[in-house]
Amino acid sequence: METVTRVAVDAMGGDNAPGEIVKGALDAVNSRKDVHVFLVGKKDAVAAELDKAQYPKEQIEIVDAPEVIEMAEHPVNAIRTKKQSSMVVGMNLVKNGDVDAFISAGNSGAILVGGQTIVGRMHGIKRAPLAPIVPTDKGIALILDCGANVDARPEHLVEFAQMGSIYMEYVIGVKNPRVAIVNIGEEEEKGNELVKETFPLLRDCPGINFTGSIEAREIPHGGADVIVCEAFVGNVILKLYEGVGVTMMDTVKDALMTSLRSKIGALFAMPALRKSFKPYLEALHTGAPLLGLNGLVVKTHGSSKAIEIKNAIGQCVTFREENINGIIKERITGAQQEEA
Amino acid sequence: METVTRVAVDAMGGDNAPGEIVKGALDAVNSRKDVHVFLVGKKDAVAAELDKAQYPKEQIEIVDAPEVIEMAEHPVNAIRTKKQSSMVVGMNLVKNGDVDAFISAGNSGAILVGGQTIVGRMHGIKRAPLAPIVPTDKGIALILDCGANVDARPEHLVEFAQMGSIYMEYVIGVKNPRVAIVNIGEEEEKGNELVKETFPLLRDCPGINFTGSIEAREIPHGGADVIVCEAFVGNVILKLYEGVGVTMMDTVKDALMTSLRSKIGALFAMPALRKSFKPYLEALHTGAPLLGLNGLVVKTHGSSKAIEIKNAIGQCVTFREENINGIIKERITGAQQEEA
Repeated sequence: METVTRVAVDAMGGDNAPGEIVKGALDAVNSRKDVHVFLVGKKDAVAAELDKAQYPKEQIEIVDAPEVIEMAEHPVNAIRTKKQSSMVVGMNLVKNGDVDAFISAGNSGAILVGGQTIVGRMHGIKRAPLAPIVPTDKGIALILDCGANVDARPEHLVEFAQMGSIYMEYVIGVKNPRVAIVNIGEEEEKGNELVKETFPLLRDCPGINFTGSIEAREIPHGGADVIVCEAFVGNVILKLYEGVGVTMMDTVKDALMTSLRSKIGALFAMPALRKSFKPYLEALHTGAPLLGLNGLVVKTHGSSKAIEIKNAIGQCVTFREENINGIIKERITGAQQEEA
Repeated sequence: METVTRVAVDAMGGDNAPGEIVKGALDAVNSRKDVHVFLVGKKDAVAAELDKAQYPKEQIEIVDAPEVIEMAEHPVNAIRTKKQSSMVVGMNLVKNGDVDAFISAGNSGAILVGGQTIVGRMHGIKRAPLAPIVPTDKGIALILDCGANVDARPEHLVEFAQMGSIYMEYVIGVKNPRVAIVNIGEEEEKGNELVKETFPLLRDCPGINFTGSIEAREIPHGGADVIVCEAFVGNVILKLYEGVGVTMMDTVKDALMTSLRSKIGALFAMPALRKSFKPYLEALHTGAPLLGLNGLVVKTHGSSKAIEIKNAIGQCVTFREENINGIIKERITGAQQEEA
C-alpha cells in the first residue's frame, strides 16, 4: 500500500469557502507528509488563497472546476447539470481512482446524491449511510443513517450496524463498540415495524456487539457507541442535538449577562465553561463519512472552518491506512456472497 | 356548564407517590375553589398523607384502589389484569362520566393503553395523540404524537394538527398557532413517504395555520407552535430534548467546579443560571394531554413533584372550561360527519 493518501477537497463548499477550506488543506500538509491534497474549485480563487501561504508545493495541487453548486440548490438537478462543479469534479476523481477520498462542506443533499450516483456503492452494499458523530458525556457516538436513505428496510440497518462498528473500531479507536438500535422503549417487543423486524436480525448478526434498544434520552449519556436508525430519525437526532445544544449554550451566555452579579460570575467562570463546551461543539463539527462507497466521501458541517477540514483530511488518512473499505468488503459483502 | 371541574389523580403513580402527588392535590384545592379532586389509590396510604394536612374537606375525596401498576410492568397486561389498580379505577371514573379528567405520573405505556382502551376515543377520531410541551427560546411548543401510536398514516397527522391547534390556542393561549410538520428539509418534495403524503393534506386543511416543514434544529429556536410527526419520531424528539438538556446542564455544573476560579464564578453566576434553566425544566415537566378521548387523560413526568400535579390539575380545569372536547367535536368529527 502506498504511504500517501490522496484527498480531494471541495474548495468552494460551505459558508467559509474558499478561504477557510484552503487554509485547512494548508494546515494539513504543513503538519503531515502522508497526504496529498487536490483543491477542487475555481482555479483563480483557489490560487489566490494559496499564493498567500507557505507550504510544501509537492503536496497540494489545484483541480479546476469553474462551476459551484450553491447551498440551496436542488441536489439531484445540481449534480445532473453542473458537470464542471467542484462537487461533481471531485467525486469523479474518487470514482476514477485518482484520489482516495473527497471532502466537502457544501450542499448536503448534493453530497449524498453525488456519493451514491457518481462514486457509487461498493458491490454488495445495499445502502450507503451518512455516519456523523455526536457528543456524549462519556465521549462520542456514531449515528447512522443520518440522511442518505429515507424509508430504509431491516437489512439496511444491519449493514449500517456492521459498517458503523468497523468505522468506530478502526478509525475512531473504540474497541468492540456497543451497537444499539434507536427505540421508544428498551424491551424487544416495543417499537415500530422497522425496529421490531430489525431487532432479531441485529441480535443474530455475527461480528457486532449488539446491546439492544436505546432510548433517545440515553444517547447523550453515552448509552451506546454505534447507534443505528433509519435516516429520517437519524436526521432528527442530529439536528435536534445541535439545536438544543446551541439553545442551551445561548441560554447560559444570556443568563451570565443579566445582572452585575452574574457578569462578575462570568468573568471567573467563562474559561471553564468554554472549555467544557468545546468537546461538544467539536464532535458536532467532525466530518461525517458516507460509508459503503467505492472510495470515501466525507461531509463536513456547512459552517466548517480550517480546523474541521484539517481534521477531516486526517480522518481520510486513517480510513485508508486502516483499510476500512477492505474490511467492509471482507466482512460484509464477502460474507453475503458466500451465502448467495 | 358546572363551575367545578372534577379531576381524578393517580395517587400511586410516579417516583414520588403518594407523598408528592397528594401534596400537589392539596396545593391545588388550597389555591382554587373550582376543582374537586378524587385521589385514587391505596386508601390507607392516601389517608395517611391527607391526615398531615390542612385543606377544604369538601374538595378532596379518596377513591380506594388496592392495586398498583408498577413503572416497569408490561402496559397491556397490566391494564388487562389489574382491574383494581389506581390507573384502571381512575380511567373508569372518566369513562363513566364521574370525573372530567384523570392525571397520572405512572407507567407511560399503561396510561396510553388505558386511555385508548378504557376511556376510549371520541366518535370520529382515528387516533389519540400524546401531546407534551417542549421549551423553546421563544416560549414553548406542542409536539404530537409523542408515543401513543406508532406507524401513523397521513390522515392521523392531519387530526393531530387540528387537535394540537385547538389545544394550543384555547388551553395554552397561543393565538392562531403556527403548525409545522417535522421533516429533514424545508422543501415540500423532501422527506419520507409519510411526510410527502401528509404535506398537501395539511396545506389544504381548513382552520389550521400550516406553515410547512420544520427541521428538528429549528424546534428549540421556536420555529413553530404545534409540531406534528408520527409517534416514533415524536418520542425521539421528546426524549432527546431531555437527554441533551440534562447533559448540558450537568456539563455547566461540572465546569463550574473544575477550579478555584470557576468556583468563585459559580458563586456569583449560579442564581442567574438557575433562573434561566428553570423555564426549560418546567416546560419538560408540564403535563401532556392525550387528545381526542371521551374525557381527558393527562400524563405527567415520572419524576413529578407536587408542583407538576398542581399545574396539571389547572390544565384540566382550563381544558374543561374552554370546552376543548366540544370544539374538537364541532370542528373535526362534526366536519367529517358532514362530508360523509
